[in-house]
Amino acid sequence: MLGNFTYCNPTKLYFGRDALNGLNEELPKYGKNVLLVYGGGSIKKNGIYDKVVAILKANGKEIFEDGGVMPNPTSDKLEEGVRRAEAANADLILAVGGGSVCDYAKAVSVSVNCGGDPWEKYFIRFEEPTCKIIPVGCVLTMVGTGSEMNGGSVITNHAQKLKIGHVFGENVFPKFSVMNPEFTFTLPKYQMIAGIYDIMSHILEQYFSGTDDNTSDYIMEGLLRSLIHSANIAVKDPTDYEARSNIMWTATWALNTLVAKGKTTDWMVHMLGQAVAAHTDATHGMTLAAVSLPYYRFIMDSGLDKFARYAVNVWHVDPKGKTAKQTAQEGLAEMEKWMISIGLVMNITELGATEEMLDGIVKSTLVMDGGYKILNAVDIRAVLLASY
Amino acid sequence: MLGNFTYCNPTKLYFGRDALNGLNEELPKYGKNVLLVYGGGSIKKNGIYDKVVAILKANGKEIFEDGGVMPNPTSDKLEEGVRRAEAANADLILAVGGGSVCDYAKAVSVSVNCGGDPWEKYFIRFEEPTCKIIPVGCVLTMVGTGSEMNGGSVITNHAQKLKIGHVFGENVFPKFSVMNPEFTFTLPKYQMIAGIYDIMSHILEQYFSGTDDNTSDYIMEGLLRSLIHSANIAVKDPTDYEARSNIMWTATWALNTLVAKGKTTDWMVHMLGQAVAAHTDATHGMTLAAVSLPYYRFIMDSGLDKFARYAVNVWHVDPKGKTAKQTAQEGLAEMEKWMISIGLVMNITELGATEEMLDGIVKSTLVMDGGYKILNAVDIRAVLLASY
Repeated sequence: MLGNFTYCNPTKLYFGRDALNGLNEELPKYGKNVLLVYGGGSIKKNGIYDKVVAILKANGKEIFEDGGVMPNPTSDKLEEGVRRAEAANADLILAVGGGSVCDYAKAVSVSVNCGGDPWEKYFIRFEEPTCKIIPVGCVLTMVGTGSEMNGGSVITNHAQKLKIGHVFGENVFPKFSVMNPEFTFTLPKYQMIAGIYDIMSHILEQYFSGTDDNTSDYIMEGLLRSLIHSANIAVKDPTDYEARSNIMWTATWALNTLVAKGKTTDWMVHMLGQAVAAHTDATHGMTLAAVSLPYYRFIMDSGLDKFARYAVNVWHVDPKGKTAKQTAQEGLAEMEKWMISIGLVMNITELGATEEMLDGIVKSTLVMDGGYKILNAVDIRAVLLASY
Repeated sequence: MLGNFTYCNPTKLYFGRDALNGLNEELPKYGKNVLLVYGGGSIKKNGIYDKVVAILKANGKEIFEDGGVMPNPTSDKLEEGVRRAEAANADLILAVGGGSVCDYAKAVSVSVNCGGDPWEKYFIRFEEPTCKIIPVGCVLTMVGTGSEMNGGSVITNHAQKLKIGHVFGENVFPKFSVMNPEFTFTLPKYQMIAGIYDIMSHILEQYFSGTDDNTSDYIMEGLLRSLIHSANIAVKDPTDYEARSNIMWTATWALNTLVAKGKTTDWMVHMLGQAVAAHTDATHGMTLAAVSLPYYRFIMDSGLDKFARYAVNVWHVDPKGKTAKQTAQEGLAEMEKWMISIGLVMNITELGATEEMLDGIVKSTLVMDGGYKILNAVDIRAVLLASY
């Protein structure tokens, strides 16, 4: 833990089969008008919508609806949400859905009273909100982004072919989140697996950076081992409560600021994946999966000790009689085998990326400087080509 | 993560070489009167007292002093602190010291406006505070208890020969804590090592319980590996900033409620250690070290799978060709070798426990029921005898 840092995460979490009862403790803290935000309507089919509405009504709330949040929430939808929240005079935004819905709720929460174009303000100029922020609560129905306990918000602008995340401060974190692992049972397997890899990628983005000895690296190795263990169970039986609950909890701690404290981080896999998504609208976790190994193999020599440590501590590679490079390569090979075994998409062609898109994806890829190697446009093209 | 639980930890942490500057952000949030709580005066020798006082004065605070908090804060001292806080009409209690000082500050904070006998109310009857709680901030100068980010408070009653901890809720957590690893450099080596084992024991008390698959167990294995690694460096060079900072951060996450979520816990080592301390006034971490292996060897057969997992994942025991029992035993043997190597006290005789005290210590030992085996008085006597 070499750097100076502050840590504060005030979000209250209600976890478990009875987590939704937490709404009865939280709702009385806020005013009457609740903007209920959700996605494509699956919560109406699986009964979660009815349960939430019943609790809102029992607590005397007036409900205003904002459905139809897409998996990659757009800047156009964000503008619509701001108008709806204004019309509702919302005292609380309650997001019921996955990370996209929660991300979107946060973006609305900082835009209602702020004026200006929120896309330009927060996702191009990365300003901090200076206006009154509407409180946000989340009821999670999908796992992966960690949005339930952080300030992250990712918005896509189709006209500009950009998908950009802003990590807001504590004042934008959800005030509370409801986390019932059973709510994730009905999620299609493709989405579950994409979420699992999203979690893994969040950890690896923070792990593969720096050469210092950091407690966070040990915590991340623990989180990765837990995730792999539980994922292997969940892909066979998505209704295994214990596995799904461990995955849900791992997702939260993978990206609620803890494991980044006192260390540098990378996030280049997300930049590559988000550029692919901006052109293909593919599922977030799958875009990360498809670009990860090409990227890690490209940078491995520049962070060899950490990749060798990863192989031993996460993938149980026996380093005896091997060079660091051999150990590291074996670790990535084990990772690849595992990724294929759980059903992840391993190249961007399968996600709809065409040769004609390549120039555009390269152009849309923001470059980060915290990893083991800073990529230029030629490097980015090489990594992406390895994923075709 | 099988159980229902809530998680909320609102404490703001300022970590690193410049952490004390955090006081300039926090102090303006509170009123003029600050009760400055500290221990035996070492902070006056190492310059921390002067730095804190200068910042308090620069922020226009009126300082009221309450020094002389002992390593095992007593119920008598607590009564004195309550009187001092009342006389000061304290708006903030600023604890500068280790866990004892921070524990004590929390006990004062819930007792000033509550009336009654705080020892009886909180440590015998385990009531929750219903009165106005004075905000507490901590400036850590010693590492181990995690008191900087939790609601724990341990008080000793000499007349009753009892040392009892109360784990208060979020409303009693410190509002902020300042964590500068350099502040721990001047601590005597004996205290540093005792603190390291206190951390290890906190993790093990939460690890050795339950048979479910829990993400927390993986996180704890990571914390243990980080702790062992950094402790080995720190005992050779107590001024190694990286090692001391990792130990400091591990201590916080070992006992700020996170790793206990969704699982059962034991805490029997603390009950045994606290009983020893109530009779000998020995250093907390050393009492835990002296009783740990006798206790773990006594209960090992009842939690064999977990002890075998511990051996493999923390002590790198190769389980090939061994029974679970052999693996588990080898793990505890490795732990013993390591404990001796860093200079921990391995029996309670060295801590001042005499044969005449044995009956009293057995009597003072509270029995917990979350571990792998529930001890009766005969068991407790056997465990303690193995530590003579």
